[in-house]
Amino acid sequence: MPENKAMQQNDIKAIDGFWRAANYLSVGQIYLLNNPLLREPLAPADIKPRLLGHWGTTPGLNFIYAHMNHQIAARDLDAIYLTGPGHGGPGLVASAWLDGTYSEVYPDVSRDEAGMQRLFKQFSFPGGIPSHVAPETPGSIHEGGELGYVLSHAFGAAFDNPDLVACAVVGDGEAETGPLATSWHSNKFLDPAHDGAVLPILHLNGYKIANPTVLARIPEEELEALLRGYGYQPHFVTGDDPERMHPAMVETLDRVLDEIDAIQQRARHDGDTTRPRWPMIVLRTPKGWTGPEEVDGKPVEGTWRSHQVPMKDVREHAAYLEILESWMKSYRPEELFDEQGQPFDWLTTRTPTGARRLSANPHANGGLLCRPLDLPDFRDYAIPVEAPGQTKAESTRAMGRFLRDVIERSHELRNFRLFGPDETASNRLDDVFAVTDRAWNAETLPTDEHLARGGRVMEILSEHTCQGWLEGYLLTGRHGLFACYEAFIHIIDSMFNQHAKWLDTSQDIPWRAPIPSLNYLLTSHVWRQDHNGFSHQDPGFIDLVVNKKASVVRVYFPPDANCLLSVTDHCLKSRDYINVIVAGKQPQPQYLDMDAAIKHCTAGVSIWEWASSDDGLEPDVVMTCAGDVPTEEVLAATDLLRRHLPELRVRVVNVVDLMKLQPENEHPHGLSDSAFDSIFTLDRPVVFAYHGYPWLIHRLTYRRTNHHNLHVRGYKEEGTTTTPFDMAVKNQIDRYHLVIDVIERVPGLKVRGAHLRQQMEQRLIEHEQYIREHGEDMPEIRDWRWPSLPGNVTSDA
Amino acid sequence: MPENKAMQQNDIKAIDGFWRAANYLSVGQIYLLNNPLLREPLAPADIKPRLLGHWGTTPGLNFIYAHMNHQIAARDLDAIYLTGPGHGGPGLVASAWLDGTYSEVYPDVSRDEAGMQRLFKQFSFPGGIPSHVAPETPGSIHEGGELGYVLSHAFGAAFDNPDLVACAVVGDGEAETGPLATSWHSNKFLDPAHDGAVLPILHLNGYKIANPTVLARIPEEELEALLRGYGYQPHFVTGDDPERMHPAMVETLDRVLDEIDAIQQRARHDGDTTRPRWPMIVLRTPKGWTGPEEVDGKPVEGTWRSHQVPMKDVREHAAYLEILESWMKSYRPEELFDEQGQPFDWLTTRTPTGARRLSANPHANGGLLCRPLDLPDFRDYAIPVEAPGQTKAESTRAMGRFLRDVIERSHELRNFRLFGPDETASNRLDDVFAVTDRAWNAETLPTDEHLARGGRVMEILSEHTCQGWLEGYLLTGRHGLFACYEAFIHIIDSMFNQHAKWLDTSQDIPWRAPIPSLNYLLTSHVWRQDHNGFSHQDPGFIDLVVNKKASVVRVYFPPDANCLLSVTDHCLKSRDYINVIVAGKQPQPQYLDMDAAIKHCTAGVSIWEWASSDDGLEPDVVMTCAGDVPTEEVLAATDLLRRHLPELRVRVVNVVDLMKLQPENEHPHGLSDSAFDSIFTLDRPVVFAYHGYPWLIHRLTYRRTNHHNLHVRGYKEEGTTTTPFDMAVKNQIDRYHLVIDVIERVPGLKVRGAHLRQQMEQRLIEHEQYIREHGEDMPEIRDWRWPSLPGNVTSDA
Repeated sequence: MPENKAMQQNDIKAIDGFWRAANYLSVGQIYLLNNPLLREPLAPADIKPRLLGHWGTTPGLNFIYAHMNHQIAARDLDAIYLTGPGHGGPGLVASAWLDGTYSEVYPDVSRDEAGMQRLFKQFSFPGGIPSHVAPETPGSIHEGGELGYVLSHAFGAAFDNPDLVACAVVGDGEAETGPLATSWHSNKFLDPAHDGAVLPILHLNGYKIANPTVLARIPEEELEALLRGYGYQPHFVTGDDPERMHPAMVETLDRVLDEIDAIQQRARHDGDTTRPRWPMIVLRTPKGWTGPEEVDGKPVEGTWRSHQVPMKDVREHAAYLEILESWMKSYRPEELFDEQGQPFDWLTTRTPTGARRLSANPHANGGLLCRPLDLPDFRDYAIPVEAPGQTKAESTRAMGRFLRDVIERSHELRNFRLFGPDETASNRLDDVFAVTDRAWNAETLPTDEHLARGGRVMEILSEHTCQGWLEGYLLTGRHGLFACYEAFIHIIDSMFNQHAKWLDTSQDIPWRAPIPSLNYLLTSHVWRQDHNGFSHQDPGFIDLVVNKKASVVRVYFPPDANCLLSVTDHCLKSRDYINVIVAGKQPQPQYLDMDAAIKHCTAGVSIWEWASSDDGLEPDVVMTCAGDVPTEEVLAATDLLRRHLPELRVRVVNVVDLMKLQPENEHPHGLSDSAFDSIFTLDRPVVFAYHGYPWLIHRLTYRRTNHHNLHVRGYKEEGTTTTPFDMAVKNQIDRYHLVIDVIERVPGLKVRGAHLRQQMEQRLIEHEQYIREHGEDMPEIRDWRWPSLPGNVTSDA
Repeated sequence: MPENKAMQQNDIKAIDGFWRAANYLSVGQIYLLNNPLLREPLAPADIKPRLLGHWGTTPGLNFIYAHMNHQIAARDLDAIYLTGPGHGGPGLVASAWLDGTYSEVYPDVSRDEAGMQRLFKQFSFPGGIPSHVAPETPGSIHEGGELGYVLSHAFGAAFDNPDLVACAVVGDGEAETGPLATSWHSNKFLDPAHDGAVLPILHLNGYKIANPTVLARIPEEELEALLRGYGYQPHFVTGDDPERMHPAMVETLDRVLDEIDAIQQRARHDGDTTRPRWPMIVLRTPKGWTGPEEVDGKPVEGTWRSHQVPMKDVREHAAYLEILESWMKSYRPEELFDEQGQPFDWLTTRTPTGARRLSANPHANGGLLCRPLDLPDFRDYAIPVEAPGQTKAESTRAMGRFLRDVIERSHELRNFRLFGPDETASNRLDDVFAVTDRAWNAETLPTDEHLARGGRVMEILSEHTCQGWLEGYLLTGRHGLFACYEAFIHIIDSMFNQHAKWLDTSQDIPWRAPIPSLNYLLTSHVWRQDHNGFSHQDPGFIDLVVNKKASVVRVYFPPDANCLLSVTDHCLKSRDYINVIVAGKQPQPQYLDMDAAIKHCTAGVSIWEWASSDDGLEPDVVMTCAGDVPTEEVLAATDLLRRHLPELRVRVVNVVDLMKLQPENEHPHGLSDSAFDSIFTLDRPVVFAYHGYPWLIHRLTYRRTNHHNLHVRGYKEEGTTTTPFDMAVKNQIDRYHLVIDVIERVPGLKVRGAHLRQQMEQRLIEHEQYIREHGEDMPEIRDWRWPSLPGNVTSDA
């Protein structure tokens, strides 16, 4: 036998050994409480009373892991492993235990018989670990509990990590999901010169819970066309005989890793800028490979019946117990584990060590690698504000200038990107194009603008892909911001949920280092979707967000550009949160100079004394606003009240940080009851104009003293294609309705304010007539300033 | 010239005329207030003050419409038109006006000059119509405001409509979205024998708002591979010269419609059961085709600059006014419209009439065609309940038997389907497989079960596709139900929003007939995701649902099987609603016999006297529950209270219909204040165990008299992989915590109940110890019945 042939045989023996050991440990996790090394014949008491877990996907995951190990060791690769299929936990945990990593981070689960018993027992057991590749699993940045995001996570991880190979196993179930189906196109956004590589491995094991999968049941030439159409070069590895499959996988991985290397060499050293056809692997193996072939006369291996636990009720059926024992023994544990239960050295002689282990790669614990952003001083981007409400500006444009310089300063570390579905310019953030471009690796035309391979603005018309890329980028320790139309951020509701849960769990895992926060800018918001109409009007993402743990979520409504700058700076510095910033892109009045903005944002909620007429006394009414459009309407209403009813003591309160409203025992930002009462009074009417659905404010404040005097206006699904001000009118959050609200609620004002009320009602009629004739808002609305221009409204005073 | 050549020339002249007219009318809608026929030179005052709209996509949409018209007329096709690209409104409205349909449903917008002026003015104008192909647009079942669903809607429309051709225009922007990317695979679920055809037309106009599109910038062979990989036979029509494009489109449409016909013939008459390679068209035309080539020296036609309004500020710039006038005149309006502004007959001699018009096809106003479901009597599926809480059953299994017979009775009309992501069996609805199969047109193997071309259970692992198919099916007047894991229904949050908005708007459009409701069964719910873990635990969809208009949404929590049957029957009979039913699939106590269940569900909320000990007097505490697991815990807590504190007057209230809690002026189901007060008392503590996030109950009830005494327990994001009962314990909604809640809240009970409280705390400790040792719940929990078995707890009485 020639030497290299012999070496390969030895390699394959070690790979197969690792694989058998991982499979053995996976089955053990699903079934066993005790007797982990099968020293005694299996007895019913050795079996868990409640059998949970998913065997079907596991042997394939273990197979890939074992083979990747070999390649990493041979090539000194820097690689991470993303597990797309759901419930792959036992496999990845088994491998991490074999790697030694598991015992390093969980010393109690030692790398010996006692640890093996704990490893088995803890799986899907109260007080133990979940069945997914969860935050608890070393080496994971991707839980896979919800399906569809493995490729976008992998690409997010690979961006700006030129030496990284993100090995992404795509389940053929998850391949049916929309987010996964479009995320294949991420290869048009990857720069082979500055980004790392993603190696997709489509694992066709053929079945979901109870059905075949679509991609496993189309002709291979059709599947190949699909994957070539996605821009990949697929390599097929198909079979069920380990003796043939091991060499096939070694050779295929060799070939695709060589191809990846060649692509990167061409881009990095030969200046080849054509979009490469990246290689990928289609691995077709039986579902539940190496598991029981048949149970109760029905085929199990290679069918959907091995999706979860192949035999249930093993305690009750001696025949099942026998199948289980011979199944586990088929891995020949005596060759794998020594007397102490430690894996024999021969299993791991050709596996990587230290940080090269898939289970210990620091990219999968990205906080470890995180470098803080080199932020410019946000004060330098301040909009000058001589007096409140006299000038107009587009708030997001100021933010765009700040982000431009954030990007410029990140050029060296390459640790910041801006994400969004084709709306960076529309959202007035286009100053960033002075220093960067949109990432684009597909064809270009001479008329194109701001498209480049190395661009740091990520635009694809898939909110799912934007979100997935950003999550992958953050989880590997970099920074970013996702700017999105407010209504359509709901598209990623479920991804938000999963990321919030990941953060929540991670915060309690000592070895997981904090990662940069996920920052959203929600703009083109509900109040300025007058032109796009009803389908574009939905502020409900906030309601979803505040369902999640207070330790994770933050929601901000900066009322103007300087506040937006202050909030953005704060969010970009934070860790382990999800920050939601809601701010409009249209020209709007500016209220606070930078010092005042910083003070206001630091407080989170404050009384705007310059707008108030309570002179530090108990007010007659508290006018409260959260959101830029509500702020303008509250100020305009206050302006009307002050001029028409000058003796009325009005207090104006602005809320930037929504979480301030919650009780302090429910959110760390929550105001104490005394602070809340001192702002909102004990018994005066509070008229609250809120950006979103009004009931959220009640939900946050129902335990507060003065809650029964709280009257909230917000969006109540009254919308259509109309003018901006008419959106406010339709939802009764406009200045005229707010004045009427005050007149109705302040004791004694019904009579004194009757004339003003009539004027307001008249104004509403005039508004309706005007917009129906002219198609735009009345000049007095469009040109409103604080305090209003004289002559707009006749004063009664 | 041979006769057929001459005929073709005439056809093309008419098609081109219709196209020019539609383009003219589209530009007019975007720009003009007055002077619709350009009888006078265009003046600034003729221009709308606020220019809104999207020109870019429109000429392509009009081109397809004009060509489809010709085919419909020539072949007497039954076809509908689905507009995938956003903001296609002006085009489809223009064509509907040319068809005459528009003036039939909106007589004010007559088919003459005065009507044309109104047509122009109303577009994107206050009091007018939106820019999308909205419910207001005749012929539409698909708004396209949010992108990505046109193919799933089209397939939903085609299912069980064997004679229908659903022409689905896919925008190349929306083609980047995940839901669209996977919905191409719908062809594996379409049965050419019993279903109609979908004709996808991928419209590559190359640009989104500010970027090129991915599919327009990959080599044509790669795009062809992708579409072939999706299972289609693409036909390319590429160009910008109308003289070449018209004949190319006529010939291509001829070919693909012949192919569709041939496929259907083979399946229907030759028994060919192989999955056909359906034809589709790739239409590559310039964005903003026929619009201004250049403005301000920059290219507009054929670039992203024609996405919206090619020239803004036309009132202010004479040069723009000139461009606009010559642009509109380039369509030669004098050849298109007569002196009265009516389209000349020659434009429409070869277009369809009556119900064959794309704008008037009754499938696009599906309520017109809707046949009520032939429902069996749900009472026949009752679970026998001798005494409340003594027997256990899987509630959804009873529902499955009912659905089985619903499906069987729908075999002739073929007007019901069941949708879900691969979970019909997992959700215990598998009795349906006695009468039908899963729809499946891909390859099969001998080991497969319940897969068939004509199956009526629709399973694909894409919640987006399930939802889109169902919406398309409902909007064309058929019935269905979507069964989904509760946590993952969030994946379609945004689709739910859009459908709710569609229904809300449609309810106010007199010519739109009501359609069957969208029914969700949310099962595998938060409380029984103990095995799948934290990622699978999220009851927040309900919070999203109740943000939508009261006229549209309904939420039900049937506590047992008979209530579930009653609620299901009610929902399947309803129209124009979105009904959310939350019910578990695990074995659980059954409480009400069928008569009691009907009475309870009809009331929506009622006092369960058999469980109460208030003897019709004012109770000491009101124990309230909504949801099956909370119901069991409240009853178990009540059981403990009654045995240990027999003198305590406990009232048990169960809420089936969540909307009953809202004030009657906010939801038509809302209880009057007096009815609410009579159930929940004016001043007694109410301990409320709720299925979802607890704050929703506060949000719904904060205006009620006794709200300040309301103490709600629910899911508060405390979850992991554990036992079912431990899920309740972790969120303090379990029987022991509820008893402690009562002891803490009923005046005077702190002392009297101190011993019981200690017992409860002891039980919680025992529970924790037991599950950590045994991995399952204590027998007394697993075997609990109402009233509990003697000996479980020592009575103090």
